[in-house]
Amino acid sequence: MAPTPAWVKQLKPSGPQGSELLAAERASSDIPVKKLEQLLFTQEVIDRRQKILGILKAEPVFDKSQNYFSGRTERFERALAREKRLRLLKAKYNWSTDEFRTALDLIGEPGPYGLHDSMFVITINEQGTPEQHEEFLKLAQQYKIIGCYAQTELGHGSNVRGLETTATWDPTDKTFVLHSPHLTASKWWIGSLGRTANYACVMAQLIINGKSYGPHPFIAQIRDLKTHEPLENIHVGDIGPKFGYNTMDNGFLLFNKVKIPHGNMLARFSKVDPETGKYARQGSPSLIYGTLTWVRSSIVMQAGSILARGVTIATRYCAVRRQFQDRDAPAGEKGENPVLNYTMVQIRLLPLLAATFALHFTGKAMMDLYSENQKRMNEKSASRDSGKRGAGPEETEAGSDILADLHASSCGLKALSSTIAAEGLEVCRRACGGHGYSSFSGIGPWYADYLPTVTWEGDNYMLTQQVARYLLKSARSVLNNEKPINDTTRILSHFRSRSEIGCAFDIIGSDTDLVAAFAWRASFLTFEALKHRDTEKKPWNDLLVDFYRLAKAHSQYMVVKNFYEALQTPETKAGLDEGALEVLTKLFRLYALHTLEQEGSEFYASGACSKHQIMLARTNAVMKLLKDIRPHAVRLVDSWGFDDWLLDSSLGRADGKVYEDMFYRASELNPLNGITVDPYPESEVLFRKVETRSKL
Amino acid sequence: MAPTPAWVKQLKPSGPQGSELLAAERASSDIPVKKLEQLLFTQEVIDRRQKILGILKAEPVFDKSQNYFSGRTERFERALAREKRLRLLKAKYNWSTDEFRTALDLIGEPGPYGLHDSMFVITINEQGTPEQHEEFLKLAQQYKIIGCYAQTELGHGSNVRGLETTATWDPTDKTFVLHSPHLTASKWWIGSLGRTANYACVMAQLIINGKSYGPHPFIAQIRDLKTHEPLENIHVGDIGPKFGYNTMDNGFLLFNKVKIPHGNMLARFSKVDPETGKYARQGSPSLIYGTLTWVRSSIVMQAGSILARGVTIATRYCAVRRQFQDRDAPAGEKGENPVLNYTMVQIRLLPLLAATFALHFTGKAMMDLYSENQKRMNEKSASRDSGKRGAGPEETEAGSDILADLHASSCGLKALSSTIAAEGLEVCRRACGGHGYSSFSGIGPWYADYLPTVTWEGDNYMLTQQVARYLLKSARSVLNNEKPINDTTRILSHFRSRSEIGCAFDIIGSDTDLVAAFAWRASFLTFEALKHRDTEKKPWNDLLVDFYRLAKAHSQYMVVKNFYEALQTPETKAGLDEGALEVLTKLFRLYALHTLEQEGSEFYASGACSKHQIMLARTNAVMKLLKDIRPHAVRLVDSWGFDDWLLDSSLGRADGKVYEDMFYRASELNPLNGITVDPYPESEVLFRKVETRSKL
Repeated sequence: MAPTPAWVKQLKPSGPQGSELLAAERASSDIPVKKLEQLLFTQEVIDRRQKILGILKAEPVFDKSQNYFSGRTERFERALAREKRLRLLKAKYNWSTDEFRTALDLIGEPGPYGLHDSMFVITINEQGTPEQHEEFLKLAQQYKIIGCYAQTELGHGSNVRGLETTATWDPTDKTFVLHSPHLTASKWWIGSLGRTANYACVMAQLIINGKSYGPHPFIAQIRDLKTHEPLENIHVGDIGPKFGYNTMDNGFLLFNKVKIPHGNMLARFSKVDPETGKYARQGSPSLIYGTLTWVRSSIVMQAGSILARGVTIATRYCAVRRQFQDRDAPAGEKGENPVLNYTMVQIRLLPLLAATFALHFTGKAMMDLYSENQKRMNEKSASRDSGKRGAGPEETEAGSDILADLHASSCGLKALSSTIAAEGLEVCRRACGGHGYSSFSGIGPWYADYLPTVTWEGDNYMLTQQVARYLLKSARSVLNNEKPINDTTRILSHFRSRSEIGCAFDIIGSDTDLVAAFAWRASFLTFEALKHRDTEKKPWNDLLVDFYRLAKAHSQYMVVKNFYEALQTPETKAGLDEGALEVLTKLFRLYALHTLEQEGSEFYASGACSKHQIMLARTNAVMKLLKDIRPHAVRLVDSWGFDDWLLDSSLGRADGKVYEDMFYRASELNPLNGITVDPYPESEVLFRKVETRSKL
Repeated sequence: MAPTPAWVKQLKPSGPQGSELLAAERASSDIPVKKLEQLLFTQEVIDRRQKILGILKAEPVFDKSQNYFSGRTERFERALAREKRLRLLKAKYNWSTDEFRTALDLIGEPGPYGLHDSMFVITINEQGTPEQHEEFLKLAQQYKIIGCYAQTELGHGSNVRGLETTATWDPTDKTFVLHSPHLTASKWWIGSLGRTANYACVMAQLIINGKSYGPHPFIAQIRDLKTHEPLENIHVGDIGPKFGYNTMDNGFLLFNKVKIPHGNMLARFSKVDPETGKYARQGSPSLIYGTLTWVRSSIVMQAGSILARGVTIATRYCAVRRQFQDRDAPAGEKGENPVLNYTMVQIRLLPLLAATFALHFTGKAMMDLYSENQKRMNEKSASRDSGKRGAGPEETEAGSDILADLHASSCGLKALSSTIAAEGLEVCRRACGGHGYSSFSGIGPWYADYLPTVTWEGDNYMLTQQVARYLLKSARSVLNNEKPINDTTRILSHFRSRSEIGCAFDIIGSDTDLVAAFAWRASFLTFEALKHRDTEKKPWNDLLVDFYRLAKAHSQYMVVKNFYEALQTPETKAGLDEGALEVLTKLFRLYALHTLEQEGSEFYASGACSKHQIMLARTNAVMKLLKDIRPHAVRLVDSWGFDDWLLDSSLGRADGKVYEDMFYRASELNPLNGITVDPYPESEVLFRKVETRSKL
């Protein structure tokens, strides 16, 4: 590659430098960045992040400088090398689970061991017997075997009951025969399977004596432990390139009547008697129900931080990028305007900035509620049967009211929050103008890797049906005059008691009224949907669009409510001075009023607001809030505490040197500049490549 | 790579085959696919497409099978090879411009000669003198020199006046000195510049005797014509990887006081006298204004086809993909439901299907209007001065009323249509569930390549200011009781004359009323914005959000109006039977009512509809239209006539063999399956690669 000439190296960006502009932004606000960061994460987490960051930066294998340039194979190879190194570091430094997760977050790319650590090990742990833990779990924890979780198939995703892979009990030799009867039975999308895993936890239809007992988990070895070649009658490989996530080897897997021992069916919750061939359940695996709720709650909390990464990059760049003069600026003020001053940029970025906090606090509240409920259930269970394991089936009954509510909430909020984060990242990318399209913006690659979240752990559209089903059930209990047992039934009861009288919320003057308006609209839509289903007997399929809207409305209510409540806690009030708290409260209002205005016709139809109020929210309140929050934007994103190493973005650099960094990456790191082409169509060879140029 | 074993090769997808399902879809509708395709494109275009397709398919260099797997460098190299081959084919078959463009469309990737053919050649042609045509144009047309158009800089995109590159007149040797005074002056994003071009048309601030005359175009050689190495004091290269468009070498370019001859300033519209150093304009380059309008109109028309590609893929796949049983289905009907039967899928795909036609007809109407106006202006001009060239400055004055309206319309519609297409493609991708994320869906890569369109040729947000400015001006003329001179002033006048009385549109029962409701809302927002600006004297910056909404409303009106009008033409009525026309009319209604419902609060606020009408549109009319259009969906997408070779999509295959194709690409084409890894963290080497496996 040609070196950058000296006359280029001495050039600087014109006008005020990025570093000066960001310094001025930071000087114009008194948001206490460190305190806010502590409130979001705790000092313990911040210190942990710094410690791990220091270790990773010192290791050459984690150098990110070629990430954006590499092709698929190279990226996968490097990702695997990083995963390996990470496990050695984990052992060397004796990292806790939290420390290890922090390292994964900082590296910021899906890794080929991903599904081993999460799904393979966890499934054996949760669904295996003590004997199976002895046989498989130990080896897995020591990386002597590398596994994956093979559920999804080429023909079946969301509908798990429709899986086609079979595990047929063979009483003659006491084995299960794994088989893929059709092409669509091929396991597909299985993370870590394509090239890395030598074991798989396979979800297959259990068949005994011709009768199907539904999908069950089986442990199967798929590759030789020495040569790493596939075993006989197993066809396995990587499924090919994807929109993102290309550091992960999502794989396919087919079985041609492969026998596995009786002991390979994970048997904590159901087993086949090896002598009689009789099938028996032992309790329901309700724990998994809880695990899914936990996973979805963590997606909600992550969504805030995922989005914050894009908002940080776009906000900093829009404070550095200057374009055009203000049309109404006095003749004397000739300089170009930072684009963050334009209201059309503010209306795109600042509600997303507000959303980062809204999602973070909502996710945190859900995870706290989940932990608290688990604790209470464990205590109850322990007091009943102190000899039992902590997470047996009985516990769920004890806390089932809260768990059912939490389950429905987690479905709705997973869908809403991941949609906000994914679509918000794209808004951030576009707000960076042309440079947002460069990989060096750091937003595009991040967006592409995040995007599967809107589909997995429950497709965002499918999930809304579960929310609606729960809300309809809750509304029926209210119509039956049952006593409210949780927040959902409470707001529905309240709505019902007032539906004749109507409401008069002061959405602009009162924060509690603003929250109440969201509850009102969600309740209105719930009873409307119930009427369509129960009274008018409309087909379920005809109501899917209504259900989707209903689930969205209910989830938006929960986000608004949780954001508001998070600002009232003693913890928050002690952690921040009054000025900072006021800015956060304005972010809450911006989030709520901007959402309300976007969904104006539903609020209006429900009677929660008047047409005039919605107009006022749009033209006055939101615009005023943008103006008030604008000076604090850079400090607010600073409080998320993203290190430049994590962001890996020219545009989002904390020091504002955006143009220098863009130029450096293009001119010094870009391997395409190492080839010289023959540009003429009629040249003898179609394409002639001159290897690395020797001189400028 | 391991061969696919025989026992895998014999497997078929389970249940009804994709081919059977698509055949059944096609049998359930009587849409005359060929006739509709003729109406959209004409038989001439269809025949041309088929002819070129046959030629391209026969050439190995255009084989697409490795496109999705290749890394950046490899993709660029192959793209350049294709570009070269294409020019040889063009000469061999003596292709017309239309035939050549058809070939480019079918190949479907940005190519490294792209900006040579479009901007470099066109700019010299339009802005060069006959002498300059002699010197540069001929060589460029013969690909003896390869050029690009270097306008955008690292620090300046939309604001062309802010460009920093200078061209300083040196009277001592009668040259211009090209110079990049700052890092931000580096040309950036310049297509074809990174590796391919050896010439550039450089937009630079013309400076004579210390005075700046604004940006002007200069022709500069940048690389040696033999070695292809950069010339002295020029630093040029590729700017690095992007979200998409990676077959194109977008480049950077810096000058260190590089001298170019006097004759290299394109001098048709302005020149510097080489003797006196005096600057002179000769007419305004108003042609460029027209060219931009033409480019934007063509973006509108393309948007329909761009989106149709995604809608075709998603519709076919959703007809083949079956998941879950209908909840309300009788116990006997056990089969899984094609997901296209779910209303939640229909509400996402069918309005987009309607949008493909809406955008196509709108773009077509605009291009017709543009051509007609150009023709009229040329005739007027010719009758005035038969000795003059056809596109001099005077002509624009003659047709300026229409051209100004067309210019504003093209700005608003470019923004609206490219946003609909880009965001619609992502909706299509998600409607394909998990498989939408695979590159083999064909949607993701296509979306990624299309995305710059929302930013270039006028950033979609920036453009809305131009529309608003024009609408405010038109509204002022109406308030001044000037006579309406075009459709815009006509609808504004109508609104003004009726604003006291109000309106009573039957949006559900009458198609003309539906169009009128869109005109009413756009007019209402125009006069509201005018009040804010002229009466309340609000700052321009405070109104940007209102302007954005206004431009969107006006553009939506134009799309709805043009779609409606296209269905009333004799050409349409002659081309289609009554049944097909009725389905297209339903698509029009779906597009209009779905848009109206999405923007409900604005329609309501303007008084164009009642709350009850909006509710009815949502719950009754739209849902009914989905049901009516559903059976025709596959035939309607068939009528776009995309060949499988063009779509390059497993999910969108015309024969429905989606799973077979997904599997084939993963199992037989995927190069990642050629490497075998060592999966253990503690292995001596971090990563060990076993070259191509020899046996299964």
